[in-house]
Amino acid sequence: MRFRKLVTVGINESSIDASHWKQIDSLAEERISLTDGSNIEEHLKDADCILVDPFAFKVDKNVIDMAPKLKYIGDSLTAYGKIDTEYAKSKGIIVSNVPGYSTESVAEFVFAIILESIRQLEKGKDAAREGDYSGLGFSLTEIKGKKFGIIGLGRIGSRVAEIASGFGADVMYWSRNRKPELEAKGIKYDDVERMISECDFLSLHLAQTKDTENFLNEDRMQKIKKNSIVINTAPMELVDIGALERRLMNGDMIFILDHSDEMKKDDLARLSKFDNCIIYPAIAHITKEAKMARQEIFVKNIENFLKGSPTNRVN
Amino acid sequence: MRFRKLVTVGINESSIDASHWKQIDSLAEERISLTDGSNIEEHLKDADCILVDPFAFKVDKNVIDMAPKLKYIGDSLTAYGKIDTEYAKSKGIIVSNVPGYSTESVAEFVFAIILESIRQLEKGKDAAREGDYSGLGFSLTEIKGKKFGIIGLGRIGSRVAEIASGFGADVMYWSRNRKPELEAKGIKYDDVERMISECDFLSLHLAQTKDTENFLNEDRMQKIKKNSIVINTAPMELVDIGALERRLMNGDMIFILDHSDEMKKDDLARLSKFDNCIIYPAIAHITKEAKMARQEIFVKNIENFLKGSPTNRVN
Repeated sequence: MRFRKLVTVGINESSIDASHWKQIDSLAEERISLTDGSNIEEHLKDADCILVDPFAFKVDKNVIDMAPKLKYIGDSLTAYGKIDTEYAKSKGIIVSNVPGYSTESVAEFVFAIILESIRQLEKGKDAAREGDYSGLGFSLTEIKGKKFGIIGLGRIGSRVAEIASGFGADVMYWSRNRKPELEAKGIKYDDVERMISECDFLSLHLAQTKDTENFLNEDRMQKIKKNSIVINTAPMELVDIGALERRLMNGDMIFILDHSDEMKKDDLARLSKFDNCIIYPAIAHITKEAKMARQEIFVKNIENFLKGSPTNRVN
Repeated sequence: MRFRKLVTVGINESSIDASHWKQIDSLAEERISLTDGSNIEEHLKDADCILVDPFAFKVDKNVIDMAPKLKYIGDSLTAYGKIDTEYAKSKGIIVSNVPGYSTESVAEFVFAIILESIRQLEKGKDAAREGDYSGLGFSLTEIKGKKFGIIGLGRIGSRVAEIASGFGADVMYWSRNRKPELEAKGIKYDDVERMISECDFLSLHLAQTKDTENFLNEDRMQKIKKNSIVINTAPMELVDIGALERRLMNGDMIFILDHSDEMKKDDLARLSKFDNCIIYPAIAHITKEAKMARQEIFVKNIENFLKGSPTNRVN
């Protein structure tokens, strides 16, 4: 079985390689690729499949109503907050997303940026380039034996926990749900407030919801252990930026983030001023392996829908 | 029991902290601290203990003969090649060294410098500082699932193997002796030539001996897998520098080293020219934890000798 008319919206041509486009094209009689929603109505009239980058184009009730023949919405990423999945469901339209493709990419990145900081690698490379190989003037620490707290033990948090265990850290977590399979590996469940005040490393892996916004509020921010390192590869909506600024001013902790979840320019500018706030571009989740896995899952979802056994449904 | 006269040679005052100096001083009636071997003869005449940095001062037959009352030589580091341990033994003098203090420091450093490279962190920080948070133009990879070869499975190599397993790499090793306890954890013993030609990451952890000098010779250097990363935190005597230069010229692999084992200036200058040769100062083994452990073991060795149960003997 194939789709009659497949419409892609906001999917950057280069984010899918030629061989995966070829696979997609084999799954539909016709493909229309749109960069955004202009003139979309005429294309949706007879579309039975939409593939979408939800950050580039919002699939709301109005869009769904434009496509009376629609059967499947393929989200090219993990987040699906911008797709009205409930309304789609009411119309019998299945929505699938691409979860977990960047689990390893982000988990390894957490250790990359921790180690870069605690081993002063940038300073080291600079010194060597200037011909100073002495190693004098460095103040370096280890992960082993340190309290390593993980807030949010989903896919990524779980992998961070496992890798931290490999380093010999004293790993603890707090999450909405207990994870017995990780507790069996020595990852301890702990009180979130105590973790914040006692951990040497604190890595945030909560999903962004109304409950988790500003999770690191003024009170918790002030409680963060002195000389600790806090890592956020999750959305910065988890963090009260003003509270973070006030804590950074004390100069007694380091905050490291990546910009993979877009921040307000103003917030970025405010945080960039601090030497103890290390900001990376959106590189946490874009290893070659993650990019490849994303495409494979994305295409597989379409194939599986057509075979009658949809995968990674979110509605 | 205490020593009557304890002489330290070449031990930088600041490399031992005040509390450890205090402990050392409680173990001898008198302490003389010399920066080098000048006028040493008069001080050794009645010394029953020498504490030495073997890189700063060589304890040869001649020196040992200057000290007829000598009972104990305390090496402040791991290497003891510059102490004539056999001759000391023939005179009933016990030599102890400080092994293993930097195991964790070096093992974690291996992952720090691998991840710094495969996640292009320096480029990332630079881009963010210039206001480019897009993550465009990066080419990043993961450790998970890659062939990770460890050459030399001593203390450090073993920890590197365990951490690499935590990352989910396909870990293999070659060593003089098989290590069943690590094989039980899934670390596979393999043929060294095959490892060199197949591994994506290759970390050298051999001790420097006549047999291991120029281990990475012309032939092996040419066999190293394309697009792999070779890490050497062991002495650079393991590597034929000319052969490395010739391979680096191909631009199809990355070599990362730290300068903790001193190299010839000329060799450093030759290697610094290559973008695909990343050189760090002597920072692999100097975490705070390692520095502290070194002092503790060093002092404990002296105490244990005095108690009649010497530890970390090398003769």
